Amino acid sequence: MLSQLREAARGWSGRHLLGLEELPAEALEALLQTAEFFRQSNDEQRQWDFLKGKVVINLFFEDSTRTRTSFALAARKLSANVVEFSSKSSSLSKGESFTDTARNLEALGADIVVVRHKTPGTPHLLGKYLNTCVLNAGDGAHEHPTQGLLDLLTVRQVKGSCKGLNVVLVGDIAHSRVARSNIWGLQKLGAHVIVCGPKTLVPRHIERLGVEVSHDLDEVIPRCDVVNILRIQFERQRTGLFPSIREYAHLFGVDDRRLSLAKPDVLILAPGPINRGVEISSGVADGPNSRILQQVSNGLAVRMAAMYLVAGQGMEESA
Amino acid sequence: MLSQLREAARGWSGRHLLGLEELPAEALEALLQTAEFFRQSNDEQRQWDFLKGKVVINLFFEDSTRTRTSFALAARKLSANVVEFSSKSSSLSKGESFTDTARNLEALGADIVVVRHKTPGTPHLLGKYLNTCVLNAGDGAHEHPTQGLLDLLTVRQVKGSCKGLNVVLVGDIAHSRVARSNIWGLQKLGAHVIVCGPKTLVPRHIERLGVEVSHDLDEVIPRCDVVNILRIQFERQRTGLFPSIREYAHLFGVDDRRLSLAKPDVLILAPGPINRGVEISSGVADGPNSRILQQVSNGLAVRMAAMYLVAGQGMEESA
Amino acid sequence: MLSQLREAARGWSGRHLLGLEELPAEALEALLQTAEFFRQSNDEQRQWDFLKGKVVINLFFEDSTRTRTSFALAARKLSANVVEFSSKSSSLSKGESFTDTARNLEALGADIVVVRHKTPGTPHLLGKYLNTCVLNAGDGAHEHPTQGLLDLLTVRQVKGSCKGLNVVLVGDIAHSRVARSNIWGLQKLGAHVIVCGPKTLVPRHIERLGVEVSHDLDEVIPRCDVVNILRIQFERQRTGLFPSIREYAHLFGVDDRRLSLAKPDVLILAPGPINRGVEISSGVADGPNSRILQQVSNGLAVRMAAMYLVAGQGMEESA
Repeated sequence: MLSQLREAARGWSGRHLLGLEELPAEALEALLQTAEFFRQSNDEQRQWDFLKGKVVINLFFEDSTRTRTSFALAARKLSANVVEFSSKSSSLSKGESFTDTARNLEALGADIVVVRHKTPGTPHLLGKYLNTCVLNAGDGAHEHPTQGLLDLLTVRQVKGSCKGLNVVLVGDIAHSRVARSNIWGLQKLGAHVIVCGPKTLVPRHIERLGVEVSHDLDEVIPRCDVVNILRIQFERQRTGLFPSIREYAHLFGVDDRRLSLAKPDVLILAPGPINRGVEISSGVADGPNSRILQQVSNGLAVRMAAMYLVAGQGMEESA
Repeated sequence: MLSQLREAARGWSGRHLLGLEELPAEALEALLQTAEFFRQSNDEQRQWDFLKGKVVINLFFEDSTRTRTSFALAARKLSANVVEFSSKSSSLSKGESFTDTARNLEALGADIVVVRHKTPGTPHLLGKYLNTCVLNAGDGAHEHPTQGLLDLLTVRQVKGSCKGLNVVLVGDIAHSRVARSNIWGLQKLGAHVIVCGPKTLVPRHIERLGVEVSHDLDEVIPRCDVVNILRIQFERQRTGLFPSIREYAHLFGVDDRRLSLAKPDVLILAPGPINRGVEISSGVADGPNSRILQQVSNGLAVRMAAMYLVAGQGMEESA
Repeated sequence: MLSQLREAARGWSGRHLLGLEELPAEALEALLQTAEFFRQSNDEQRQWDFLKGKVVINLFFEDSTRTRTSFALAARKLSANVVEFSSKSSSLSKGESFTDTARNLEALGADIVVVRHKTPGTPHLLGKYLNTCVLNAGDGAHEHPTQGLLDLLTVRQVKGSCKGLNVVLVGDIAHSRVARSNIWGLQKLGAHVIVCGPKTLVPRHIERLGVEVSHDLDEVIPRCDVVNILRIQFERQRTGLFPSIREYAHLFGVDDRRLSLAKPDVLILAPGPINRGVEISSGVADGPNSRILQQVSNGLAVRMAAMYLVAGQGMEESA
């Protein structure tokens, strides 16, 4: 197993994981192979020494439990020291600048900073200022690379490969960093990506990214191998959702009827938390085509892989 | 010492610790013996590897510091990775269902979920849905099994055995999960249980549980071996405390005068936090009959025991 | 290196670190030498076993991220189990007394309690009640000994020794526990201390502490070897800052013009978080005379030293 890890690490050349758009294909491959290694190993070996004595700082400027917990646990399973840092309790409220906060974390000995911020590009800014490794845990509507990677990993586990697959991303494309990371990642692995949602929630000109655009899920779903159902982010809808929730569920919600239009082995993904009865019915969420919980397990493995590759290389002897 | 632990573990057959009512007597005995092992060992050996690489999630839907800290510390002393999870910051506030949250925690690799919730039966529900071990840290007014166990352990340490002892639970029986867990546990170990409080705070028909009911502490206290003083939960009193706090302290507060009516070696217990001058006077709380702080130390040992027995068996060679 | 640590520990005789005023000179020296050991070692060896199995409780009754994080990380690097405890979520809100909370933490097995509280003397009170080691992380405007120590350590690293140096503390002396800890520490190491600020922010009679008082920074700065720039604590200014912020920056802010009056090798210190453009300009904060980030790194080392010396002695074989 460790030779598999060593092999995968050769494809990696970065110090940060900022987004899938700029990630070289070899690095993407290395991340996925390393994640697969950890996912397979997690059942037998629960604890690794790869980051022993290293310091991981969870720097979240937006509320998160799922992603924050996943990163923290990934770090602990690699034996790192984890420091939780949230904007509310921080010196930022005493008037300190963002970069001063970051430099201070570095001076405390941070080896990896995991950052979530509502402003796109914040992790890239940090990456320029700091000598530590930076992992993007979501920057506005821009990217959420580890979510993209865990989706890719799940597709590969179920379908063997992403190459030549038709993948539809359904829902609120406009506000979704998950959509963007999926688009870049899927295209690099050779998939054809369709985005499908109401016109109000699909950005103009998104076809320039090389994706197919649709506003009719019933038309699209029969030819898809993967349906990735984005969450309606009620908390981000400022002006009221148009169409209404009921109308949205009718037009874009994936329920048993709509699933029956799809290929029998269609893969259903959904980055949680899901709104049951809105974008996905309980029957579909808990049904045999869904891999929603496998996505969560893969998320842990992907974050372990990212941390290992940015900060734990050359330590594999210690395992 | 380890052979003592191995011996105790033989009496255990469960995967969860949900309440003392349904707990077989052998399992109760195994928990107490294992807790005694850890209590005696804690002074010499501070850190154990029994849960190394395992994941404990502290899932608290009610505020708690004491119990939460005690569980977290117990997990860390067994070398588990601990994840703190509170309802306020969780995806529940984004509309996720309780069982989806729980399944996600499981998919993250949780081995033990410690849960506190205001709804009775929540831990039992979780136990049905999840393959992980569930420890009840308090469900409404139903049960608080580790508190019950730590009370039992303290009684056994001081009195040698619970068999044949008269134990009075004083105070707000109606709102107290501690009272219920004490009643089941004490009865299984052969004690006679008396509940004593104002009529407004003692549930009707509680004598069906096999307990004696009294509303006159002065009459009861002289024949008791143990007085367990429940906390007046001001925050749970919706309609105003009847009787008033002053009247309550007069009728049911345990002070030096009332203590003088008891046997000289009466054991005074109180699950904190205590309201000095209300249900217990400072003189009694800090006096020679009180074992309040010993209860806290025992709480840590009991939680280590519960975690060891549900999730750490067969690992004793690693210690 | 370890023999250096052993040598330093011989100068230490305390069980608490409450303040620099009462600290014997040998203990001050031991703390600084031990901190220097950890600072030099931190790059190579990232994790120590000195506090393995021990329990450190971070008991903060005032908001803090920087200091709290630094203490938590110091404890983890020494392999302690760290418990975070804040007043808001604690049983104190259920009416428990401060000393009961403290005794409970002790009964849980705390080896070290790190405490920050707005009331001067709180750590001393805890130190009397508890058998555990107490570290003062700031008590009102009284002392902040680890901040004082990290300032001293930085001065020694840059200047070789504190002996005979002129050190000016600039700013809000009245509200500053950092100022007090610096005064005691610097004087014990043979430095001459000047306090300089507007009359409204310099306490009367402070010259009784053996310091020189000035209200004219331009007059003082040319003869100083070290300028320690205290933060204007906007959140503590109840009645409005007099002089105004603009006037303050003009009279006491350290910018390039004012720096040009100083010796070329003057050392600029500032306990963060800094208000750029108020008490210090960006040019000075980021310039070659500043050691602001070195102070942060030294803070980690100082806290490791304090924990090692109060609770980890005699364990150096385990490293």
